[in-house]
Amino acid sequence: MKTIVSYQGERGAFSEQAAKAYFGKNSTAIARESFHDIFQDVAKRRSSYAVVPIENSLFGSVHQNFDLLWKFKVYIVGEIKLRIKMNLLALPGVTIKDVRYVYSHPQALGQCEKFLRTLKRVAVTPFYDTAGAARMVAEEHRRDSAAIASSQAASDYRLKILRAGIESDHKNFTRFLIIGRKRIIPRRHPKTSIIFATKNIPGALFKCLSVFALRNINLLKIESRPIVGAPWEYLFYADIEGDAGEFERVNALNHLQELTTYYKNLGSYETGGNVNP
Amino acid sequence: MKTIVSYQGERGAFSEQAAKAYFGKNSTAIARESFHDIFQDVAKRRSSYAVVPIENSLFGSVHQNFDLLWKFKVYIVGEIKLRIKMNLLALPGVTIKDVRYVYSHPQALGQCEKFLRTLKRVAVTPFYDTAGAARMVAEEHRRDSAAIASSQAASDYRLKILRAGIESDHKNFTRFLIIGRKRIIPRRHPKTSIIFATKNIPGALFKCLSVFALRNINLLKIESRPIVGAPWEYLFYADIEGDAGEFERVNALNHLQELTTYYKNLGSYETGGNVNP
Repeated sequence: MKTIVSYQGERGAFSEQAAKAYFGKNSTAIARESFHDIFQDVAKRRSSYAVVPIENSLFGSVHQNFDLLWKFKVYIVGEIKLRIKMNLLALPGVTIKDVRYVYSHPQALGQCEKFLRTLKRVAVTPFYDTAGAARMVAEEHRRDSAAIASSQAASDYRLKILRAGIESDHKNFTRFLIIGRKRIIPRRHPKTSIIFATKNIPGALFKCLSVFALRNINLLKIESRPIVGAPWEYLFYADIEGDAGEFERVNALNHLQELTTYYKNLGSYETGGNVNP
Repeated sequence: MKTIVSYQGERGAFSEQAAKAYFGKNSTAIARESFHDIFQDVAKRRSSYAVVPIENSLFGSVHQNFDLLWKFKVYIVGEIKLRIKMNLLALPGVTIKDVRYVYSHPQALGQCEKFLRTLKRVAVTPFYDTAGAARMVAEEHRRDSAAIASSQAASDYRLKILRAGIESDHKNFTRFLIIGRKRIIPRRHPKTSIIFATKNIPGALFKCLSVFALRNINLLKIESRPIVGAPWEYLFYADIEGDAGEFERVNALNHLQELTTYYKNLGSYETGGNVNP
């Protein structure tokens, strides 16, 4: 039986590429409209997993998904870092001289700013989705327009790649989390993600980090998000090296709970490698 | 002579309210299209100050402005926390039954979700700006439409307030920073903002925070942002209590520079109070 995986966006979205790269061909990727939908799919057993973009190396965190990790009873079971390659797509036969309009998601347009400045007499227009822009150009037979999207979107909507790799900085990766309903035990390169709120005591965050530092447990990342209804108070999202089931980590995380007013263990999983689609 | 202050958005924007609340009537607020423009206005002496939204208590940080604080040679000279009140605005004579379309910025629509669900047969449509939505309803004489925006926008564009205070959570504040070209010496309730990147050593962030914790210097906030061109490396933005010129703080910030590969002092300034427009 095929594994069913939810992703946000249209067919040809970067999230779909991440789903295919992680789960391989023996999986069915389901396109959903919102991030909330894909979390709900997992929680309500409509799919086994969801592929969640959490951070882009140029633009930073996708905060909505941090909030959904806090809200839903799901666990992180894997990670993948996808190299994001942007391409200029148009209908077959259209040349770059014919292009008067370029459509894409604002983030994608931002990533291709240097390239776009080299085009003359072209209106650059924000669109809600990269793959959606490709679909629109194809379905409306727009011979004066191009979309910026993945190479997968080119083949899905039968468009031609006019220019490949047009992003300004090639060190452009998006980190995706794989979420499921059950915790897993990672086999190699484990990491653990947690959420916590500090007690209102002096040096609170310093003391929370001490539970890791004094045990030589590497802190990989820390991020703060506002607590709704409590202005200027924050939840911290931290990634630490190692599996939460190891002796020192069990102690460290118990120690952390002495110092926090809220604590959630999002799960331990294998650190994802970089993947070229 | 009037103080010239740049803000992002159209006339009636919340940023304009913040500018007026901070600088009073003896100031001229200049509307600019982008955040980049208002930083550049200050750097290039086109205005004395800019009013920069940095964080909303419901939605979190405005990351673009963190990046601009890093990029431009400007200093933080003040802070103000503006209570954000959302209102449903329409042309005079229009009643709530006439409204078929509601326009506003996606963040504002999100903040009024509960109220919007009570409306029947209404299309909720995202617009690039709250004040811009109000202007559009007014200029196009849309008798079937309403905008969600500030009460200032209502008077600027001669619209009527159909419903006031329609945001779902009333603890809704936006924190604005005032930026200028010169450091100031704050008189009371001082705080200091810094940016740093940690050395690649074990327990790096813990050691950086120790320079404050071991001196009982309160860390008010910490936030991370990706470093462009260095995937999965981060700049930290921290706010600490007190003036950077005080003896222990001078020592703490010198100590911090032993542990960092990048350091920038954004300035010391008075902690802003909550303001009702």
